[in-house]
Amino acid sequence: MTQPGDLRLAVGMVGGGPGSNIGIAHRTGLLLDDRYRLVAGSFARDAGRQAAMVAQLGIDSDRSYADFRAMAVAEAARPDGIDLAVVATPNDSHVEIVTAFLEAGIAVACEKPLATDSAGAAELVALAAERDLVLAVAHCYSAYAMVRHAARLIRDGALGDLRFVDVEHASGWASVLHEAAGNKQAAWRMDPDVAGYASVVADIGIHAFHLVRYLTGLEAEEVSAQLDTLVPGRRVADNATVALRLTGGVPGRLWASMAATGQAHGLKIRVFGADASLEWFHEDPQHLVVRRADGTETRYAQGMAGLSEDEARLNRVGMGHAEGFIEAFANYYSDIADELFARRDGVPVVHRELSYPTGTDGLVGIQFVEAVTASNAANSAWVRPVSKKAGQ
Amino acid sequence: MTQPGDLRLAVGMVGGGPGSNIGIAHRTGLLLDDRYRLVAGSFARDAGRQAAMVAQLGIDSDRSYADFRAMAVAEAARPDGIDLAVVATPNDSHVEIVTAFLEAGIAVACEKPLATDSAGAAELVALAAERDLVLAVAHCYSAYAMVRHAARLIRDGALGDLRFVDVEHASGWASVLHEAAGNKQAAWRMDPDVAGYASVVADIGIHAFHLVRYLTGLEAEEVSAQLDTLVPGRRVADNATVALRLTGGVPGRLWASMAATGQAHGLKIRVFGADASLEWFHEDPQHLVVRRADGTETRYAQGMAGLSEDEARLNRVGMGHAEGFIEAFANYYSDIADELFARRDGVPVVHRELSYPTGTDGLVGIQFVEAVTASNAANSAWVRPVSKKAGQ
Amino acid sequence: MTQPGDLRLAVGMVGGGPGSNIGIAHRTGLLLDDRYRLVAGSFARDAGRQAAMVAQLGIDSDRSYADFRAMAVAEAARPDGIDLAVVATPNDSHVEIVTAFLEAGIAVACEKPLATDSAGAAELVALAAERDLVLAVAHCYSAYAMVRHAARLIRDGALGDLRFVDVEHASGWASVLHEAAGNKQAAWRMDPDVAGYASVVADIGIHAFHLVRYLTGLEAEEVSAQLDTLVPGRRVADNATVALRLTGGVPGRLWASMAATGQAHGLKIRVFGADASLEWFHEDPQHLVVRRADGTETRYAQGMAGLSEDEARLNRVGMGHAEGFIEAFANYYSDIADELFARRDGVPVVHRELSYPTGTDGLVGIQFVEAVTASNAANSAWVRPVSKKAGQ
Amino acid sequence: MTQPGDLRLAVGMVGGGPGSNIGIAHRTGLLLDDRYRLVAGSFARDAGRQAAMVAQLGIDSDRSYADFRAMAVAEAARPDGIDLAVVATPNDSHVEIVTAFLEAGIAVACEKPLATDSAGAAELVALAAERDLVLAVAHCYSAYAMVRHAARLIRDGALGDLRFVDVEHASGWASVLHEAAGNKQAAWRMDPDVAGYASVVADIGIHAFHLVRYLTGLEAEEVSAQLDTLVPGRRVADNATVALRLTGGVPGRLWASMAATGQAHGLKIRVFGADASLEWFHEDPQHLVVRRADGTETRYAQGMAGLSEDEARLNRVGMGHAEGFIEAFANYYSDIADELFARRDGVPVVHRELSYPTGTDGLVGIQFVEAVTASNAANSAWVRPVSKKAGQ
Repeated sequence: MTQPGDLRLAVGMVGGGPGSNIGIAHRTGLLLDDRYRLVAGSFARDAGRQAAMVAQLGIDSDRSYADFRAMAVAEAARPDGIDLAVVATPNDSHVEIVTAFLEAGIAVACEKPLATDSAGAAELVALAAERDLVLAVAHCYSAYAMVRHAARLIRDGALGDLRFVDVEHASGWASVLHEAAGNKQAAWRMDPDVAGYASVVADIGIHAFHLVRYLTGLEAEEVSAQLDTLVPGRRVADNATVALRLTGGVPGRLWASMAATGQAHGLKIRVFGADASLEWFHEDPQHLVVRRADGTETRYAQGMAGLSEDEARLNRVGMGHAEGFIEAFANYYSDIADELFARRDGVPVVHRELSYPTGTDGLVGIQFVEAVTASNAANSAWVRPVSKKAGQ
Repeated sequence: MTQPGDLRLAVGMVGGGPGSNIGIAHRTGLLLDDRYRLVAGSFARDAGRQAAMVAQLGIDSDRSYADFRAMAVAEAARPDGIDLAVVATPNDSHVEIVTAFLEAGIAVACEKPLATDSAGAAELVALAAERDLVLAVAHCYSAYAMVRHAARLIRDGALGDLRFVDVEHASGWASVLHEAAGNKQAAWRMDPDVAGYASVVADIGIHAFHLVRYLTGLEAEEVSAQLDTLVPGRRVADNATVALRLTGGVPGRLWASMAATGQAHGLKIRVFGADASLEWFHEDPQHLVVRRADGTETRYAQGMAGLSEDEARLNRVGMGHAEGFIEAFANYYSDIADELFARRDGVPVVHRELSYPTGTDGLVGIQFVEAVTASNAANSAWVRPVSKKAGQ
Repeated sequence: MTQPGDLRLAVGMVGGGPGSNIGIAHRTGLLLDDRYRLVAGSFARDAGRQAAMVAQLGIDSDRSYADFRAMAVAEAARPDGIDLAVVATPNDSHVEIVTAFLEAGIAVACEKPLATDSAGAAELVALAAERDLVLAVAHCYSAYAMVRHAARLIRDGALGDLRFVDVEHASGWASVLHEAAGNKQAAWRMDPDVAGYASVVADIGIHAFHLVRYLTGLEAEEVSAQLDTLVPGRRVADNATVALRLTGGVPGRLWASMAATGQAHGLKIRVFGADASLEWFHEDPQHLVVRRADGTETRYAQGMAGLSEDEARLNRVGMGHAEGFIEAFANYYSDIADELFARRDGVPVVHRELSYPTGTDGLVGIQFVEAVTASNAANSAWVRPVSKKAGQ
Repeated sequence: MTQPGDLRLAVGMVGGGPGSNIGIAHRTGLLLDDRYRLVAGSFARDAGRQAAMVAQLGIDSDRSYADFRAMAVAEAARPDGIDLAVVATPNDSHVEIVTAFLEAGIAVACEKPLATDSAGAAELVALAAERDLVLAVAHCYSAYAMVRHAARLIRDGALGDLRFVDVEHASGWASVLHEAAGNKQAAWRMDPDVAGYASVVADIGIHAFHLVRYLTGLEAEEVSAQLDTLVPGRRVADNATVALRLTGGVPGRLWASMAATGQAHGLKIRVFGADASLEWFHEDPQHLVVRRADGTETRYAQGMAGLSEDEARLNRVGMGHAEGFIEAFANYYSDIADELFARRDGVPVVHRELSYPTGTDGLVGIQFVEAVTASNAANSAWVRPVSKKAGQ
């Protein structure tokens, strides 16, 4: 663990090796604010790829690990061991890897989904609680400055009582049968044995669902879902429509798709209240649109004066200068860093209402995926997700 | 009936009196292309309001009718009687009024919904067929030039096989409890005895559904619906989310709302195919967006060269000069006029694949409303709309 | 002249015959609100084309005129003669035609430019004043409801002191050498003997300039201009950039182009004040964007509650239902009708600050064209337009 | 200098101390791709601020310099001395600081403007050439991936022959008299002794002008300019409109403003050719719009397949995931790193047609500012910028 006075936390990474886009997003996000150093890693099972990665990143050879277990043990034993383990491996390995680091007393930031089922996720949440360790899950869309501002507006009552929520994460990347052409990203996502039949929900629907919870503070009480395979020849669901009944009976809906031909990324959310509604679209992340009951539509820009403190603290370069996906990752890691520094230095952790998603958030997401799967299997019957409390 | 050689058809109107916005849309749409004269009417039950309307419109006093039955009989008896009756009265009067004119041998263009239930609508469809008369229903959104072009593109295979349809008609006009303040538009729409509990579906969801059918040529095989009342104190559903299973198993979804705070009119449709998707938004009606699988997004403008003949024939003033709602009504009435002129003149009616919505379209819309209502009553169970064939 | 009690004014038209788009815009605009009847016309010099037009429009044969002079004389002599002559002929005929009608005591609505030089325009203005007759010029863009609202906002000080104005009317219709291919619209516009070398300014720059004056109430004190021919082989200027010094030293700029490849119509204006700015774009005419100093950007929609009376009186079908180019023409003609009816009926004319453009507006536009031409000839030296006062 | 094999170049920074936004942009851009380490600096004249900055950044105390001259000498003498000096001090200090590093044999990346006059800038260009050292100027807007793609499209003839260029950099940040309120950013920019009367041109107009040159490859042959002070009480020009005559007689125009009330950043460029035009807007930097002569408007997204290699090599996280201002800085520094690594390692420098802006680009920008100033002084007479060749 780094020592008080050290400016940067030490990070180790598992997964995210050569060819992993998400590995790049994590590493650049970690570096952006210069609060972390990447000092250890087990990036790839293949020794040659591991060596290449370590060389490219300039990691000392004695902190290059062939195996995550060895890494957890060795880093825990070093006086300068890592403060945080970033896990970016395939989904089905998360539980054992996260467990290893938590058991070694090391905080973990894990890619979503936290586990392949809620039982596994609940174990991790319980373990982190028992060890009093940070366990974060990379639902990074909630780390955009204007998402934070939106969540603040809603909590402060700017929309009035909430009435309806509409969210979609509908991209077109897999409108072609990429898995038939050996595409690596597609291969595991379209394999029901790895990704589950509800692949599209576990992959991106879970992000959309997290955004609903993060913005509104509401939970899903019941879901009615339909899963479809839009691309002929595909073995998993690539499209999901879900009706939601949220806390207090607020209705909503969610659409997740990997086969929405022609759409790029496609994450968009609208929240409707008695007095106004708001809209945030991930492909224009530095703006937030608020529509009032009289029909005016007002767009707010990241970095402008007069927004909330939750927004302001996440600005780097000022109004009119777009910040994007990497900056969202940096925000996520910066929130984690705030807590890790405080813990290291023995000062009180400042609790922020709007901060990084935790293991519990990851667990609730998986419970949602399972409820969607169950509803679809029951011909769209309304299904109540297992409560996160029961799951812990 | 007007005689061969007359340049303009004679029209009579029932309803649409003082204070009726939709009456204005019908009359300006009728006038725009100078193919109709409004020569008779029974606009209001109140004699003073009727007189005022007749005076304002310059209608001869002998063609001002206190009663639609008298109007149907008298106009049928005149050598210069009306060629078309436009019906824009409250929903629950449509069946008897339309029946009166059809029985008098007069073609009818009726506001939607054609009737308050499918049985009534089916009677009208049958009667029109029996008498071989035009029966049109004012689902006018399908008359925009760029909607016609979109329908043509889809029929010509420009999107490839259809995979998913997303439509919403979500306006914010009734996000306030207007009915408590004596708002006339709100009064009957929020009265379950007049509009039915599924008011929002019968009022605007039916337009969205028609647009799905018009663009794609697909029918709804099953629906799973949830109706909600978003505004406290309201007595009807003002929000509906519907999952669709369309012909051939193509999934889709529909959202209708009168309480989407801050939205203006809110009719938008996206159709996804194997090769591309398209989007049309009623608040920017002169454009059509096509997104291709590679991620390019191309916007086409009404009036540009190279679009389809279905689009081209509906242009009046050329690219860059917006045409709007009134022009859509004019298109609708112009399509009807083409048929009425041909019938009058004894020349063959040119059948266009993309033309005005008929009584059958109106009937299918009502069957959809009924299926949605039934599904909601059955806790969102999948319900099969009664077939239009069975309904006839 | 129509008599008190007649609901509709009688109109005659000169020009706008077969194939004229602008003729269609005028006629549909005239008809839309049912306040005019088109009863006389001299549409084309060719007898066959005249006959076809008269037949198509259903005009009585005794009011079909081969010659505008005969028409002016005959209509003036009839008890039911026209109340208004609409002139939509080529530019170089405007002076003699308008003169003929004014001298016959008939009000005139003339296409822009009012004349081919300011001397001719000034004569017409003087003649109309002398005879106390309505002389309107079809700068119809100022008749959009949201343009009216923008002008009201500025007059009411919503932007604070005005600081800068930016306007462009840059279309792409002539980015190809259409005149070489026999295109009729292009032929006269690209002929320096008919349209003048500064063709693009006289054709559309004059609209942009009118919009500046209409919105801001400011006049051009000096201009510095550059005219260019962007399309090789063309004989007139198809592109103009103009620096403006407006009343009180407010700077501005204007860009007019017929060769802005890929743009549709391209009329857009931004007005900047001390407290806020606004933007209106003709291709989305039902919205107005206001940007405040804090960076918020608010969009207002035609037909929403709470806008100005100048906006409200021009709505036909309500928020979210687009009105377009034809409706703008209808607004223009309706403003004229208000005045013609009042004059006919001998009641006081209600003076509205924001109404139809007059002959003086037409004259000032031509003075602008001349100043631009002079500045370009003097290598962009600053040139002061001849004052409209001096020109009268 | 770092040694072959070192993964990261050593960087020192002059200026960009506490409170400097641009300092943050430089440092985060440097770090993003992990190709640089910030190891030395002279950030602030005040010793306490310098100490705070060095501590915050974790720079060794023996590489904290009170004075840039000492830094240049000491770093040149170290075997591990810096490979690059980043200069982010006030404009009037650039010449002496850049000179010191170049004379010490150290490459320099300097903020714009390179100098306060073209004589100074020309000296720096000559010195860098004489010493064969990299001299880069931070016109970072040209480093966006989609700007690179636009420049490639134009060079490859996708627009056809170029015909007109329109650029604006019109922000609203100084629509208020911030300098009267002690705003530090405003203080020096609004002081004519520091920033020159043509402050707005030297500050942001120069960026817009660079973008014109970068995209089109054209130079300004003549300019006709008007400078204005829009905000009462201000002592410099805060608004500039410039007519351009570019290479080969292509006309264009440029608008720079700091007082465009309500606009955020406001950098937008449109380039028109014979076959198509394109538009790029800095506030939506990941898209590029191309409009074809037929009126279609196509939007391309950063990261999509099928774009140019110039675009592809600058992607980090894929289509739909916005990259912004910091990533543009990172691209700029990465291009510089490519050259510095090659020079260090003695391998051939790969010349890319589209790479970072050099000292010569900085010089040409200043020549433009001077020509604008001269034109304005001569009442907008056309002025020919001193040729960059003559200036060297």
